[in-house]
Amino acid sequence: MIEMKGRIQLSHGAGGTIMSNLIRDVILSRISIRKIERGVGLDEFDDGATVPLNEEEIVVTGDAYTVSPIFFPGGDIGKLAVCGTINDLAVMGAKPIAMMDNIVVEEGFLIEDLERIIDSMNNIMKEVGVALIHGDFKVMPKGKLDGIIISMAGLGMLYKGKPILDSGLRDGDKIIVSGSIGEHGIVIASLREGISFKTKVVSDVAPLWNLMKRAMDAGEVTAAKDPTRGGLSMALNELASRSNVSIWIKEEDIPINEEVKGACEMLGLDPLELACEGRAVIGVREEDADEILKAIRGTEEGRDARIIGYVKRDRPGYVIMETIVGGMRIINPPLGEPTPRIC
Amino acid sequence: MIEMKGRIQLSHGAGGTIMSNLIRDVILSRISIRKIERGVGLDEFDDGATVPLNEEEIVVTGDAYTVSPIFFPGGDIGKLAVCGTINDLAVMGAKPIAMMDNIVVEEGFLIEDLERIIDSMNNIMKEVGVALIHGDFKVMPKGKLDGIIISMAGLGMLYKGKPILDSGLRDGDKIIVSGSIGEHGIVIASLREGISFKTKVVSDVAPLWNLMKRAMDAGEVTAAKDPTRGGLSMALNELASRSNVSIWIKEEDIPINEEVKGACEMLGLDPLELACEGRAVIGVREEDADEILKAIRGTEEGRDARIIGYVKRDRPGYVIMETIVGGMRIINPPLGEPTPRIC
Repeated sequence: MIEMKGRIQLSHGAGGTIMSNLIRDVILSRISIRKIERGVGLDEFDDGATVPLNEEEIVVTGDAYTVSPIFFPGGDIGKLAVCGTINDLAVMGAKPIAMMDNIVVEEGFLIEDLERIIDSMNNIMKEVGVALIHGDFKVMPKGKLDGIIISMAGLGMLYKGKPILDSGLRDGDKIIVSGSIGEHGIVIASLREGISFKTKVVSDVAPLWNLMKRAMDAGEVTAAKDPTRGGLSMALNELASRSNVSIWIKEEDIPINEEVKGACEMLGLDPLELACEGRAVIGVREEDADEILKAIRGTEEGRDARIIGYVKRDRPGYVIMETIVGGMRIINPPLGEPTPRIC
Repeated sequence: MIEMKGRIQLSHGAGGTIMSNLIRDVILSRISIRKIERGVGLDEFDDGATVPLNEEEIVVTGDAYTVSPIFFPGGDIGKLAVCGTINDLAVMGAKPIAMMDNIVVEEGFLIEDLERIIDSMNNIMKEVGVALIHGDFKVMPKGKLDGIIISMAGLGMLYKGKPILDSGLRDGDKIIVSGSIGEHGIVIASLREGISFKTKVVSDVAPLWNLMKRAMDAGEVTAAKDPTRGGLSMALNELASRSNVSIWIKEEDIPINEEVKGACEMLGLDPLELACEGRAVIGVREEDADEILKAIRGTEEGRDARIIGYVKRDRPGYVIMETIVGGMRIINPPLGEPTPRIC
C-alpha cells in the first residue's frame, strides 16, 4: 500500500466537492487567462464555456470518457461520449453543431469493438445533426491503458442569443427534472457488483438537444444542468450555490424507478447521488413552468418529467428536501460519485 | 501471445500510413456528417477543421497526449499538449485564442507532478496569450492507466481570412523547414533506450504561433504542417499527396544536429521519420521565399530555418530527395513513428 498523501485518489475525479476543491486549488489557481473577454470561462465551473466573437457567441465544451465496462445495457462508451457532449452544450442553451474526438486505445483492442463504438457515436450525431469535423487517434502499449478513453470537444451556437448559466436561478423559479434519475449510475454500479435485476434497468444515456430546444421554445429557462457525476444532489447544489439561492424539493415528486430504488437499497447507494446521462435539471420561470413541462413531456426523453421543487432567495446555497416520511433534510453535495469510471 | 489479427497494434497510432488507413476505413467511413457546410472537416485530414459562421470562420483542433516519460529534457506532457494544440492552429493560419483540456490521471498520481504540469501548460498559454476556458478531470483506478493522458481542444481565429491547407502547394513554391529536425523524437527514443548523450539534446517542443504570424506577414504561405508523428517524411508526403504535386528536397539542406545524427545511427533510426514538436514545414510562393525565410529566422524558434526544396507539378504525390552521396531517392511515407508514446 503506497502512502496516498499528496497523491491523486479516485474521489478526486468523482465529480463531488473533493474534485471541485482539487480543480480549484491545483488547476484554476495556476492558470493566468481563464476566459475570453465577455465570455464564460473556467471560473464559472459551468457545463461549457463561451467564445464571444464579433457577431456571434459560440459555446464549447469537452469531457473525457472512461466508463467501464465500455458496453452496457442501453449504450456504450461511444454513445455516452457523444450524448455527454451534446448535453453539455444543450444545457448551456446551445444547439450542437460540431464535435471532435480524441480516441486513445490499448494495444490489442478489438477493431470490431472500435467499429461498434464509432457506429454508436455516428447514430447519435446523425440523429441530432452534428458533424464530426476533426479527431486524433493514439495507441498505448498493452497494459498501459485499460481499454479505451474517448475525449470529446463540442461546439454549439446559442439558440436564444445568450447562454443558460448555473447562476441564472431566481426567486420563485420552478425546478424540473426531465425524467427518472440514477439509471445510468445503477446500471454501471450493478455490473461492477455482478448483480442482475429481475426487471432489467438500462442506462438513461440519451441526447437532450431536442428536449432543451422544446423547453426554450415554450418559455423562459433560467438555468439547466445535466446531473452526471454526483447525480441530482450535486447538480442541485451547484445550481443553488452558483445562483445564490436555495432550492426546495419534495422527495415524493422525484421520479425514481422501483428497480433503481431496490438496487440502491441492496448496494447501499443514494439514488440522488447516482449519475444520469440523459436527464436535465431545469430551472424555469414560475409562470412558464406548466407550458415548459408540457413541452418536455412531449419528447421521447422527457415523458416522465416532473416539477420537483422551487427556488427561494433565503438560505442561499442550500438544497432542502421535504422527505416522504415527513420533515426536512438538507441535501449536501456528495463528496464524490460512489462508482468510479461511471462516465 | 494473443492473436493480433483484428486487433489494434501500436503502429495503428503511430502517425504513418497504417494509421491513416485505419482512420479512413474504421472511423471516417462510419461517420455520416464529416464537416460543417463550407468548412474544412474530417475528409481533409488536415491539422484542424474550420467552422464557417455568418461573419467569421474559426479553426478548431484537438489531440490526445500520451508521451512517456511525462518529464523529459526540454519539456513535459503539459508543455507538449499546449504547444501541440497551438501549433496545429498556427499551421492552419489561425491565431490561437482558447483551449480546453481533458485530463485523465491514474489513482496515486503525484499531485506535485500534476501541479508542475499545469504550471508548464500555463507558462506557454500565458506567453502566447491563449485562455484555458474549460476542462474535465477524471481519475482511473490504479493499474488502469499508466500515469496521465492530456487531451486538448484548441480554437483560433483565421489571421488572413482563409485557412492554410495541406492542399495549397503550387508549382514553383519553395519548402522551408523552420529548424533542425528530430530532436523531440530522439530525446524520447533515447530515454527509452537508456542512452545518454555526451552533448545533451533537448526536445524542440515550442509554440509556433509567433513564427507562423511573422511568416504570413512577410509573404504568401501556401501550405504548412508541423511534422510530429512520422516526422518530416510524413509531413512532406502528406503535403505532396494532398496538393497533388511533387516535392523535391536536398538532403544537405535539411538541418539536423550532429548529436541527433549520431543517436540515429546508434539506434538505427531515420531522422526524417522522427517527430518534431516545435518545427513547421512551410510552403511559400517562390517570389516571397527569401523574405519569409528572413522573417522566420528573426524568431527564437526559427533561427535555424532553411529552404530545403521546391514544388513541381509533375510526378504528383512524390517526395524526392537529392542525397548527399549523390543520386535521387524517393522518400516514402513511414509506416509509423518508430517510438510509441512520442507525443
